[in-house]
Amino acid sequence: MVHPRVLRAMASPLIGHLDPRFLELMDIIQEQLRWLFHTRNAFTIAVSGTGSAGMETVIANLVEPGDSIIVGVNGVFGERIATMIQRCGGQPIRIDAPWGSPIALEHIEYHLTHGAPIKALAIVHAETSTGVLQPLAELGRLCRAHDALFIVDAVTSLGGIPLDVDAWHIDACYSATQKCLSCPPGLAPLTLSDRALAAIRSRTTPCHSWYLDCLLVADYWADSKRTYHHTAPISMLYALCEALCLIQEEGLEARFARHRRHSMALLAGLETLGFHPLPPTDYRLPSLTCVQLPPNLDEQRIRQQLLEEYGIEIGAGLGPLSGKVWRIGLMGESSRIEYVFTLLLALEEVLSQAGVKYRPGEAILAAAQGYQRLIATDYLRDSENLQTGI
Amino acid sequence: MVHPRVLRAMASPLIGHLDPRFLELMDIIQEQLRWLFHTRNAFTIAVSGTGSAGMETVIANLVEPGDSIIVGVNGVFGERIATMIQRCGGQPIRIDAPWGSPIALEHIEYHLTHGAPIKALAIVHAETSTGVLQPLAELGRLCRAHDALFIVDAVTSLGGIPLDVDAWHIDACYSATQKCLSCPPGLAPLTLSDRALAAIRSRTTPCHSWYLDCLLVADYWADSKRTYHHTAPISMLYALCEALCLIQEEGLEARFARHRRHSMALLAGLETLGFHPLPPTDYRLPSLTCVQLPPNLDEQRIRQQLLEEYGIEIGAGLGPLSGKVWRIGLMGESSRIEYVFTLLLALEEVLSQAGVKYRPGEAILAAAQGYQRLIATDYLRDSENLQTGI
Repeated sequence: MVHPRVLRAMASPLIGHLDPRFLELMDIIQEQLRWLFHTRNAFTIAVSGTGSAGMETVIANLVEPGDSIIVGVNGVFGERIATMIQRCGGQPIRIDAPWGSPIALEHIEYHLTHGAPIKALAIVHAETSTGVLQPLAELGRLCRAHDALFIVDAVTSLGGIPLDVDAWHIDACYSATQKCLSCPPGLAPLTLSDRALAAIRSRTTPCHSWYLDCLLVADYWADSKRTYHHTAPISMLYALCEALCLIQEEGLEARFARHRRHSMALLAGLETLGFHPLPPTDYRLPSLTCVQLPPNLDEQRIRQQLLEEYGIEIGAGLGPLSGKVWRIGLMGESSRIEYVFTLLLALEEVLSQAGVKYRPGEAILAAAQGYQRLIATDYLRDSENLQTGI
Repeated sequence: MVHPRVLRAMASPLIGHLDPRFLELMDIIQEQLRWLFHTRNAFTIAVSGTGSAGMETVIANLVEPGDSIIVGVNGVFGERIATMIQRCGGQPIRIDAPWGSPIALEHIEYHLTHGAPIKALAIVHAETSTGVLQPLAELGRLCRAHDALFIVDAVTSLGGIPLDVDAWHIDACYSATQKCLSCPPGLAPLTLSDRALAAIRSRTTPCHSWYLDCLLVADYWADSKRTYHHTAPISMLYALCEALCLIQEEGLEARFARHRRHSMALLAGLETLGFHPLPPTDYRLPSLTCVQLPPNLDEQRIRQQLLEEYGIEIGAGLGPLSGKVWRIGLMGESSRIEYVFTLLLALEEVLSQAGVKYRPGEAILAAAQGYQRLIATDYLRDSENLQTGI
């Protein structure tokens, strides 16, 4: 879901993309994104394409033929990064983990210290295909220690869970507008450190892509230059600016707590119905809850019924998880407790029709209790912080 | 300018990009674009990026390392195509013409018959940097006769002047939404012939770009597959569908006549003020009027004044034409006779302040007369067509 203010912003009349007022908007968006990414990187922009264009921008600019890049593969998007590295002539050094598990630090460390020199590590912060949250801070220190660039896919994390580009030594980080930012799809927020830019400037072969060439894009976005490159998607940038304003108004801590509470409530309810989380306890995304299905469930029919009769869209399992998991997004504007209850009610209804045994109302009750417990915990923590002056 | 119906469409609540109702919308857009491009090509879609992403999609997919591609260069966009060909490892065979002139058929024919085998000819139908209209029908026949693919940049032509992809043997044709379609920037309509698709399928190296890979994009848009590739920019596609509905309601002939009339009226007015068209008579775009400036004009200040005081944006000259020409767009919704009069009035005012001598009201009068003459001509032609039963 998108906030009505974002829809209204998008419907504003257009001005030229080189109009001074539009250039001001580009400056504002850059500042907003720096705040959101927790970075001082000068190069902090929105790529004129969807999240995958953000991924391709990073890979196409940072990978030269022959470069060795470690890539964590535990879902669709790690796999996609590896494919893109290959297409750019790079050598992806895959570190695979089962879909549903995070990538182990030791395996990455091993490859950073043995074998060919590593140019970069690329990893997915929030795997949309499995609901796995990948811890990053240690990886950042490791990369810096081994002089490797640190590339992070933050498509389903930015704005939903903590992300600290500068503190975690991230050199390239991209996201998408349609996940936790609650803005329509079409833009990819992107930030590059000076180290990443230096690596791009010292390329010996030109970047294959002209459209996504960061040096050209940098001159278009840089306050001092604004050299015409392409025509920015004006309406989408209106929308992004407004979506970021809404996030600033809510505050990041409050927003993260909201995502956490609602996903915990959802999970508490789902577990009573026999749906159990795929990722281990400490590696679960609050923005995307990935659950394994109870046995013998005609999951495709039930998803269809939820969509057609209740207007609720559930993501199917992808790749090896096809037919085995559901992926339920509670992101940005859609992370609302009423949606949790609506889904659980609908689910009780359709599962009952499908002959699944359950105790009526138990899911709702569990969700409500989980929710209240978290509200209380957050309240206690806030009170303690107040008392200790944090 | 964008029609209010398009703005309203863009502000519609979002549905999932794999929702059956959204898939229906994708089908409708494909049909609309086939109608607009005058083609039966199955591969007729909107690329999830701006016009330059459309250009890059065609070049990145059709050009393999070592391929020789003839490219007409008489402005910024021909130059851009040549750059993209090089970045893909291709060999651009440049046919340069002065900025403001079309590319000569003989030069193209010479290169098609002499030297290395030519994979494709790439040419700009409507050069946004010079206002030159490039005739295409003969070039299409020539390409077909020499078994070369015919690539056409229709960014500033589609929806504003006649374009017949199938009849003119065009194999790859891309455009942008923000020109004559009067839709916000962010999408690139694109159509590929079966010959072009066959060339892509027979590549020996994979396309460097994953995001713009036409075979993956084809599977995402194909009615029978809808294989997840990236997340389509949903709101932009709402807008495009509505913009195309508006074009269908107006009818292409009426739309082309409207563009023609208003540019003729504008030019008649501008000439009285000492602005003369850059391109030769038969090669002028109705969507973009490019005029040479009277001597000793502080053109930058006057453009700024027009923008700040009258809200009228005039495109500056680019590259070698910087400071020498103005580019005035009358495209789609903005091709309106009242805008012609508004600009001429504002221009008389600011030129007068700048000390330029002219006879007050003459520009408006000339524009009005030119407009009425064309209305009469169109009326006569329509009557004749009625009488002869065409």
